Amino acid sequence: MMAKPSTPTLDRVQSPADLRTMSDADLRRVADELRAETIDAVSHTGGHLGAGLGVVELTVAIHAIFDTPRDRLVWDVSHQCYPHKILTGRRDRIRTLRQKDGLSGFTKRSESPYDPFGAAHSSTSISAALGFSVARDLGGAPDPALGDAIAVIGDGAMSAGQAYEALNNAGHLKKRLFVILNDNEMSIAPPVGAMSSYLSRLYAGDPFQQFAAAAKGAVSMLPQPFQEGARRARDLLKHSVVGGTLFEELGFSYLGPIDGHDLDQLLPVLRTVRARADGPVLIHVVTKKGKGYAPAENALDKGHGVGKFDVITGAQQKAKSNAPSYTSVFAKSLLEEAARDDRVCAVTAAMPDGTGLNLFAERYPSRTFDVGIAEQHGVTFSGGLAAGGMKPFCAIYSTFLQRGYDQVVHDIALQRLPVRFAIDRAGLVGADGATHAGAFDIAYLANLPGFTVMAAADEAELKHMVATAVAHDEGPIAFRFPRGEGTGVEMPERGQVLEIGKGRMIREGKGVALLNFGARLKEIEEAVENLSARGITPTVADARFAKPLDRELILRLAAEHDALITIEEGSIGGFGSHVAQLLADEGVFDAGLIFRSMVLPDIFIDQASPRDMYEVAGLNAEDIEAKVLSVMGVESLGKRA
Amino acid sequence: MMAKPSTPTLDRVQSPADLRTMSDADLRRVADELRAETIDAVSHTGGHLGAGLGVVELTVAIHAIFDTPRDRLVWDVSHQCYPHKILTGRRDRIRTLRQKDGLSGFTKRSESPYDPFGAAHSSTSISAALGFSVARDLGGAPDPALGDAIAVIGDGAMSAGQAYEALNNAGHLKKRLFVILNDNEMSIAPPVGAMSSYLSRLYAGDPFQQFAAAAKGAVSMLPQPFQEGARRARDLLKHSVVGGTLFEELGFSYLGPIDGHDLDQLLPVLRTVRARADGPVLIHVVTKKGKGYAPAENALDKGHGVGKFDVITGAQQKAKSNAPSYTSVFAKSLLEEAARDDRVCAVTAAMPDGTGLNLFAERYPSRTFDVGIAEQHGVTFSGGLAAGGMKPFCAIYSTFLQRGYDQVVHDIALQRLPVRFAIDRAGLVGADGATHAGAFDIAYLANLPGFTVMAAADEAELKHMVATAVAHDEGPIAFRFPRGEGTGVEMPERGQVLEIGKGRMIREGKGVALLNFGARLKEIEEAVENLSARGITPTVADARFAKPLDRELILRLAAEHDALITIEEGSIGGFGSHVAQLLADEGVFDAGLIFRSMVLPDIFIDQASPRDMYEVAGLNAEDIEAKVLSVMGVESLGKRA
Repeated sequence: MMAKPSTPTLDRVQSPADLRTMSDADLRRVADELRAETIDAVSHTGGHLGAGLGVVELTVAIHAIFDTPRDRLVWDVSHQCYPHKILTGRRDRIRTLRQKDGLSGFTKRSESPYDPFGAAHSSTSISAALGFSVARDLGGAPDPALGDAIAVIGDGAMSAGQAYEALNNAGHLKKRLFVILNDNEMSIAPPVGAMSSYLSRLYAGDPFQQFAAAAKGAVSMLPQPFQEGARRARDLLKHSVVGGTLFEELGFSYLGPIDGHDLDQLLPVLRTVRARADGPVLIHVVTKKGKGYAPAENALDKGHGVGKFDVITGAQQKAKSNAPSYTSVFAKSLLEEAARDDRVCAVTAAMPDGTGLNLFAERYPSRTFDVGIAEQHGVTFSGGLAAGGMKPFCAIYSTFLQRGYDQVVHDIALQRLPVRFAIDRAGLVGADGATHAGAFDIAYLANLPGFTVMAAADEAELKHMVATAVAHDEGPIAFRFPRGEGTGVEMPERGQVLEIGKGRMIREGKGVALLNFGARLKEIEEAVENLSARGITPTVADARFAKPLDRELILRLAAEHDALITIEEGSIGGFGSHVAQLLADEGVFDAGLIFRSMVLPDIFIDQASPRDMYEVAGLNAEDIEAKVLSVMGVESLGKRA
Repeated sequence: MMAKPSTPTLDRVQSPADLRTMSDADLRRVADELRAETIDAVSHTGGHLGAGLGVVELTVAIHAIFDTPRDRLVWDVSHQCYPHKILTGRRDRIRTLRQKDGLSGFTKRSESPYDPFGAAHSSTSISAALGFSVARDLGGAPDPALGDAIAVIGDGAMSAGQAYEALNNAGHLKKRLFVILNDNEMSIAPPVGAMSSYLSRLYAGDPFQQFAAAAKGAVSMLPQPFQEGARRARDLLKHSVVGGTLFEELGFSYLGPIDGHDLDQLLPVLRTVRARADGPVLIHVVTKKGKGYAPAENALDKGHGVGKFDVITGAQQKAKSNAPSYTSVFAKSLLEEAARDDRVCAVTAAMPDGTGLNLFAERYPSRTFDVGIAEQHGVTFSGGLAAGGMKPFCAIYSTFLQRGYDQVVHDIALQRLPVRFAIDRAGLVGADGATHAGAFDIAYLANLPGFTVMAAADEAELKHMVATAVAHDEGPIAFRFPRGEGTGVEMPERGQVLEIGKGRMIREGKGVALLNFGARLKEIEEAVENLSARGITPTVADARFAKPLDRELILRLAAEHDALITIEEGSIGGFGSHVAQLLADEGVFDAGLIFRSMVLPDIFIDQASPRDMYEVAGLNAEDIEAKVLSVMGVESLGKRA
């Protein structure tokens, strides 16, 4: 571990206002020191390294030129916000990033006035910035008062429809608005799609040098009223160096591309556009993800999401794993199924690594489709594949599937198309916090007529559910599974096709029945073990299906026990609610049944380890144990009930 | 009423195959007769007139040139599908459009093999067509076998992000695919946004005549192997007459604009592109909504959605209304509030008329934002407005808000931004059928932490809820209300701010408590009236809030009655599920309570009158009456329980 970097110039920056008193030479020193500080901080915490390193100079330049926090700066996705956090009063806590009670890994309104609009999901920044811009013109009066609005959005995020919708609307409204397109030629995965090719062509055609020279000419005249820079920027606004017609056709003035690591370009360009713009401007900045830190620059993913690491070698600490991850079990199971059935194909929305489909893409490139950050299209495209006789596995995290919800309802469920939804990151996810929680999918899928909804209790179950999904051609089917490693159960040679709508008994007991849906089963078993020591022997069953429900199993559990407790890693409205509806309809409550439904609580839970998050949620073994005791009327030894 | 039009040529068309044996002159006659037949049919049924009239020639041309149903033709939104239905074996039922047990007003897979992918929500067609195109190349083998894929999409639908996502992906995949951009310069409302201006510029620059001449040259050579037409099309594919760089930059070959009412242009162009295309092609066709029927052409909305009408005069039969519509009560209430509070502003996604915000736009143009068909952007933009100190009312139908669900979760709920969601068309909507049902919003909003969710029991309640939303600055708030007219209650002079999370007693009774959420209250009151005649006097309460629940009211109702029945116009997972969770948590079920939750059933309900749809759903007065009797152990006189 290196000593903390020496940062004499950065140390003078208490807030962005300090940057505005500095010479350009000092700003360059701030940038260098900010890069070192960012690397050091992330080496202690892990997190998103490459994105922040790519925008160090841009972050310094924006805060030096614009009047933040009065000017609203909205970072898209905000993986790249660590340098921003260091400059905006949070340097003292930067080594708590993504940890319990620490700084969020994303921008967050409740954390700082310099984060006027939080983000984590992609492609929202232009919409939000346009909202600020319009509110200013309408006399909206928040604190601090409204100045300019600036969105910084990556090229990957430009593949999402929302970015286009926002550009389209902004081009129409013609409000003064700054959109900085941070083109690092790579979002999380190498970008796909025609927009990406288009941006590459703009980039390839650019003689950076010419523009750099002109921009430097402007710098030499500052702080005079930058005549040359202004003239140059004005020219750029009219006739960009390379083109950018796509943005111009949508109503934006286009400027660029410029070298995002060269403050001699960034500062004069931002100064002049700030002074002159009277409508929406798109500033195309080219950067390198991981810039200035060789291990990140050389990594395949440019240090996108890293663990703690050694600054000198770049070597990451890897947590020892005891069991395969759910993601890898899904990916390998799907590969096996695809070998047996050539109609199996896979769709990802810019997450080939995160979903494990990179393996599938290697083996079956022609059957793998990375549609970009475009969940809406990805879902309907899967519907087209299904209607065309294929067996598409649409692999989207629970939280991101929200992006394609209408398509799930309107294109898939209504038409009963057999699209297979592989829903990774179900439940609480840890360091990514509340924005990435997979909390709502059980509720928002299980209420759709004709949908089959499964959750895997362990990695062997997941393998069976992949096989079940392959076999199920009667309509849409979804299976959810959590982030992280499995429970270490023995893996079957081959996934078995489960009977639709049938759960399984885990353990016959008496008094209280625990009905699991999803990956809390291990916690249930731990709770039952502790309870057994006290002579309490609950029945445990695994529902496997939230829809269709195993009516026979549930009604039998209700009939044969005094109490029935459902447990799931999801919000109200999901499995427990469906069970309650069944029990009500069947008159089970009429004569009395102790029924409890353990769900995620009605709060957004901040980042921490999954275990700590589930403690907040009240869904760990001790909580289940306490719940059993409480329904039995037994004091629960101080645990919550 | 006119006599049925004379259609000797159309009468020869039993299926599109018959078109392929006809001369171009016959096809022109078919088009003319098809227009007359469409007008006559819609005069009997009401429905979407202008959209279909705009594509009569295009419909004939596509079916004459392409090998439907082997070639998959996907109509976007599909308001324009009536001529298509007439040509594809459904002419005998065309006068049952949008009626109970009749033809759907939209394309529908279960209705015909010529409808390979149903639609109703906008901008899905390119995604679906790309799915077919890819499935073909992967060997997908549905019945009939896969040929080409053609999407027909309007210019208004191009403002939605999904269309862009799909173009972007299709441009990348480079599969043979036909996208016909039907540019009628108007979607439902006059289109907004920069894309619309861009298309107008393309159109303005076009010398139709030159192209028409060239195309006619091609026609004269047919059925020879269309050398001239092919050469011309090839040239067009490389260098379009006007431009179209935006589409070309996304990877499409662009061809157009061409006159969509001139079969002498359409036929040769489609013939040549079908013969020659080896990648994605965008064919830009300019049409006129309502074409060929003066009353539609001259109407402000070009006959978008009409009632039954007199063919000669165009005069529509108007249903007599007894009470103001919920939509108009919302719109007028919002106007009144905006007069008192200049922070009130309004956002619509291309539905100014449908949401009633056209009134708002007239009075407060600078505070009204029509973002286009762009719900994702509309929601986050509203979030930016709220963060900027405004009080945005984001008015989106229940079914369309599904398009912005992730933004509701991630941008609004997580940040507790006080966006006001005005959710029209809650519940079952009638002739638009299952695709437009507002079934899921209670479930998908009430499970979001910090959200306030209301439903109006009548139009006076709606007025109070608008006032309540204006006053509520602590976080997001939604109020839902149904399509159609109110109940005729006396309207208050001014909306009152309701206490958050408090319901109201309607009628104190005994034995059974009926707890209403939403606009079934009138049905409940009718049921109670009938029951009273039998000496049964249930208590009736109106919850007003699904979140936060009125715990005190609910627990009191449970304590003081033998049975509690909740009623709502929404799916499982919503109000009733929240009530059940409360009752379970509070141990109310432990000792027994007859609890029933009346929700929309687990089926998609086809179009009919709302009353008939609610009969299928089991949520009419007679169903409520039967439910009360059944929980009392009384025979229900043959009604369902």
